[in-house]
Amino acid sequence: MNYLNFVSLEEIQRIKKSIKDSFKKAAVLADIFRINTLYMITKAGSGHTGSSFSSIDIVTWLWMQEMRNPNEADKKNSDIYFSSKGHDVPALYSLLTGTGRLDFDYIHKLRRLRGLPGHPDIITPYIMTNTGPLGMGVSKAIGMAVARRLDRKKGQIFVLCGDGELQEGAFWESLQPAVNGKFGEITVIVDHNKIQSDTWIRTVSDLGNLAAKLRSFGWEVARCNGHDFKALSKAFAQFKKIKSKPKILIADTVKGRGVSFMEELASDGYYKFHSGAPNIDNYQKALGELRARVNGQLSKLKLKPLKFEEFEIETRTLPQNLQKLVTAYGAELVKLARKRKDIIALDADLVLDTGLIPYKNTFPDRFVECGIAEQHMVSVAGGLALSGKLPIVHSFACFLSTRPNEQIYNNASEKTKIIYAGSLAGLLPGGPGHSHQSVRDVSTLGSIPSLTMIEPSCEQETRMALRWAINENRESTYIRLVSIAVETPFKLPKTYKLRVGWGVEIVEGHNAAIVAYGPVMLTEAVKATRELSAKGISCSVINLPWLNRVNGKWLATLRKHKTIITIDDHYLNLGQGTLIASMIAKDNLGIRVVSLGLASIPQCGQNQEVLKYHELDYLSLAKLIKASLYSLAGH
Amino acid sequence: MNYLNFVSLEEIQRIKKSIKDSFKKAAVLADIFRINTLYMITKAGSGHTGSSFSSIDIVTWLWMQEMRNPNEADKKNSDIYFSSKGHDVPALYSLLTGTGRLDFDYIHKLRRLRGLPGHPDIITPYIMTNTGPLGMGVSKAIGMAVARRLDRKKGQIFVLCGDGELQEGAFWESLQPAVNGKFGEITVIVDHNKIQSDTWIRTVSDLGNLAAKLRSFGWEVARCNGHDFKALSKAFAQFKKIKSKPKILIADTVKGRGVSFMEELASDGYYKFHSGAPNIDNYQKALGELRARVNGQLSKLKLKPLKFEEFEIETRTLPQNLQKLVTAYGAELVKLARKRKDIIALDADLVLDTGLIPYKNTFPDRFVECGIAEQHMVSVAGGLALSGKLPIVHSFACFLSTRPNEQIYNNASEKTKIIYAGSLAGLLPGGPGHSHQSVRDVSTLGSIPSLTMIEPSCEQETRMALRWAINENRESTYIRLVSIAVETPFKLPKTYKLRVGWGVEIVEGHNAAIVAYGPVMLTEAVKATRELSAKGISCSVINLPWLNRVNGKWLATLRKHKTIITIDDHYLNLGQGTLIASMIAKDNLGIRVVSLGLASIPQCGQNQEVLKYHELDYLSLAKLIKASLYSLAGH
Repeated sequence: MNYLNFVSLEEIQRIKKSIKDSFKKAAVLADIFRINTLYMITKAGSGHTGSSFSSIDIVTWLWMQEMRNPNEADKKNSDIYFSSKGHDVPALYSLLTGTGRLDFDYIHKLRRLRGLPGHPDIITPYIMTNTGPLGMGVSKAIGMAVARRLDRKKGQIFVLCGDGELQEGAFWESLQPAVNGKFGEITVIVDHNKIQSDTWIRTVSDLGNLAAKLRSFGWEVARCNGHDFKALSKAFAQFKKIKSKPKILIADTVKGRGVSFMEELASDGYYKFHSGAPNIDNYQKALGELRARVNGQLSKLKLKPLKFEEFEIETRTLPQNLQKLVTAYGAELVKLARKRKDIIALDADLVLDTGLIPYKNTFPDRFVECGIAEQHMVSVAGGLALSGKLPIVHSFACFLSTRPNEQIYNNASEKTKIIYAGSLAGLLPGGPGHSHQSVRDVSTLGSIPSLTMIEPSCEQETRMALRWAINENRESTYIRLVSIAVETPFKLPKTYKLRVGWGVEIVEGHNAAIVAYGPVMLTEAVKATRELSAKGISCSVINLPWLNRVNGKWLATLRKHKTIITIDDHYLNLGQGTLIASMIAKDNLGIRVVSLGLASIPQCGQNQEVLKYHELDYLSLAKLIKASLYSLAGH
Repeated sequence: MNYLNFVSLEEIQRIKKSIKDSFKKAAVLADIFRINTLYMITKAGSGHTGSSFSSIDIVTWLWMQEMRNPNEADKKNSDIYFSSKGHDVPALYSLLTGTGRLDFDYIHKLRRLRGLPGHPDIITPYIMTNTGPLGMGVSKAIGMAVARRLDRKKGQIFVLCGDGELQEGAFWESLQPAVNGKFGEITVIVDHNKIQSDTWIRTVSDLGNLAAKLRSFGWEVARCNGHDFKALSKAFAQFKKIKSKPKILIADTVKGRGVSFMEELASDGYYKFHSGAPNIDNYQKALGELRARVNGQLSKLKLKPLKFEEFEIETRTLPQNLQKLVTAYGAELVKLARKRKDIIALDADLVLDTGLIPYKNTFPDRFVECGIAEQHMVSVAGGLALSGKLPIVHSFACFLSTRPNEQIYNNASEKTKIIYAGSLAGLLPGGPGHSHQSVRDVSTLGSIPSLTMIEPSCEQETRMALRWAINENRESTYIRLVSIAVETPFKLPKTYKLRVGWGVEIVEGHNAAIVAYGPVMLTEAVKATRELSAKGISCSVINLPWLNRVNGKWLATLRKHKTIITIDDHYLNLGQGTLIASMIAKDNLGIRVVSLGLASIPQCGQNQEVLKYHELDYLSLAKLIKASLYSLAGH
């Protein structure tokens, strides 16, 4: 058993009351908020420590000193704050719980169902807008400012931006309108910690002379140490005098600030505390450093040392035989790229998450790091494909299928061949929340002519899918990859080969056929058949990796099943299930179809919680399937 | 009868040979290219005159003097040119036909099937990439440059950008990577004519200090008169010396340059020669001015005046009783906004095309002009909605449903109410080409929870749809509007009311039911039933304006028809037909479904040509429906 520590609300209040000097108070409180942030993220098993720690001094100062009636938007005089990058929200949660604004119990519920979402969502009090997708902050602030002007409301709007976020075109798109509209009520703070998701910004996609750039758009620009409360105070005081133009503070910060080993890159050159959670050793080391720092300050102020609460956590043991699709993808890509010299891989600051490190190390000349600039990346791929190369474009599915949607279609209209690999696909992991749960990509990309979408179910099929996309498919391919490691209770038949639009049976059965795809839903489906089998219902499970292609001949072979149950790791509307059902009607196959999938915006929570909430865990599936078979029987 | 004039290839060659001085030659040829551009656009009935005329001097100089082996990409030493804004392509076509690169006959085939597309497409020789969606140019050039470096090819890449285009975030996203990668082989020319689609850039969304902005990103920036060949020559010579960074020339130009009345805004403050075609009077006046200018120059050079070829055109008489949905929309919006003070309309430089002028004039305080910045616009709307306003967002459907796709979903995740109005929806007009033919929006947006998509079929239903979206729908709405005026051969029943997911019969029949939506497809469907009826087949026509909602009870009422034919003004895959068919299977209704719609990327051409090509004109539809009914009967 291990123990995590947090600081109670009472203890925070004791300290808050005992320190008079606002700078000293902010310094101590920000470190206590760090301690509770660390607790939240470690307990949740994932979260963004680095950004939370780099921004927490700024957030603390704003909320405790600068803002009037912070985020009480109904009041006539209230200042608004939100983070555009969003993933630093654990820091804000820590402040909100630590100042009594949010029920303190929430600190135990980060990334849990009905708890605190992994990215900001307005279901949480004091959260003003949903963020997570980058570069939207200034535009949203302008919308709020326009409304407040019409309603004759006073108050400033503070927007925190990441520095990696500044690579997004949407951010630059919003800068000039803010100046043209003289939005002096808007103040942006750039949490300039110089490290983006993977590593140093300067090595990913250097920002150049940031201050000059921002100034050239007509913004009032200032720069200061984002961990120096006096400097922050001075910068905001200066800003207050300027009414006729928007203001931006470049706050020089340190990612992971407050914990020595979180302030550095790992020896391999990558930053390891962007997302995820520290292991228990790192947790304890980090806590030790923070505790010493706070107590040192308290001692100087002649105050009692910090009292901690304890929370016992179970040691997790990971199952064996996990299928890690992204890793398999990365290994296969290296293998294939040795033979195909025309392959060029593109990335958008996610090499750690898209399996690209082995490729990048092996073929540095055929690797294009685009930074967080998905539209740019997809059009670079377009130019490469027109010039005879085979570009393979990587990002998270949620971003890749939406932000550069028009660019992907534009490439398709040139009938070149491009491979898009979207990881973090589907409902799980449930922790990051709906901005990162990609459950719309079949719909957003599925109608593009000559773009075939495939989702592999295991490592073996991942390798097959990539080989097929590179060597066999003449058109473009979207490879949809689940990122979580899954212990899959099924195997593909030894003779299995990919055949466009054809499914493969992985469990035999005769009462009905379940058609699904990907490791998560196929696993739940297989487990559901075991439940059903105990109740005398025998269901076949078919893996159909083709998301927007269904072969009519193959579909006709399912007639023996009378009923098909489709399970989408996607919204019900316009997913694979919709396509299968529509073809059954068009081909007049007379098969009954029951479609399961997501009916509402995905919840944030632990994986099993989320599956259950959406009735996509095996127990719910078994229940739903049983009920539907009975109701159909009596039809 | 009226006559249009053009200058033959032989005549162009005579002049080319006769003038030695390269500056004088370019001046005369550019004006001749203007004459042929004017001919092409007037004959086609639509095209972008203003941009073609502002860019044609630059294009002429580049192609005739600066570039080596222009656009012969297979050669080791060749320079590449393409326009990022794309819509100025008639100017390039005029040059390509006038220099013998393209078969001269093409000048008669602008915007015709198998002719020259309204926006650049690589199916045309010497066109290097498909453009039309804005802001992709620099990224594509980087892709080409990376490939050329790997292939050890030499040569420069010239990219023409519009100045309105610079409002797009995608452009700014691409600037820093071009500097970081030291892409000295890339030269961008901004055709800085200061007028975007609607009017002056400075009144739409001012660009600020453009040179300072571009310089702050690290680009080499120069500025000159874009109609002064000597200045252009000098600027490019200077650029050639700079190898280590990308270069950008701000070329000051005049939109519509060469024709006095095309160089000005109309008296209402809007620019009338961005798209569309001049009427015959304006054509003749414009030709007169250009002819006088060329002949004046030729006379100074002691050369014979220009010889013209003639082309006879029919005078078009427009049908009466045209349904103009966008106009009706604009009028209804004004009416509704008088009562609903929370309405705020947003636009992206398309007030002339989205029916917004009456609204803008009536409610200037509740109008937000965002410029060509769709991502920004949608997030401003998000901020407004969070602040209690009812934002109504306007753009062309092709852009609105794709570029800000992630932003629309982000707004949806906040469960606020926003109305999105996408005009220029569907296959027609066929002239602008596939970048503007929005036939993917049901798919790209249809799975977003709490976003209902509706497409009205006539002016009356347009007004109903807007009223419903504003006053009745609690969630968000996407209103899909066909922009072309259609003479519709049907009327809605007097008692008709909108009811989510319910269709309405507009033609009675009993052999089968055709389900369609929007004025274009319903018109073809109704006409098809007349053809079929002459052959003894009686088909009902049902208008189902709900694109992503089908009510099960209503659908069950169609069982009497045995066969349903769905017609999508959209790709077959993941359009309304897919949804209807899938529900028929899920509800086990036993109705046969035949789905018609687009099976491939839309062709560019005249409306009837395009409909026929895709077998969506009424004669093709009648044939397909007849055949499908017979084949089903014999099933």
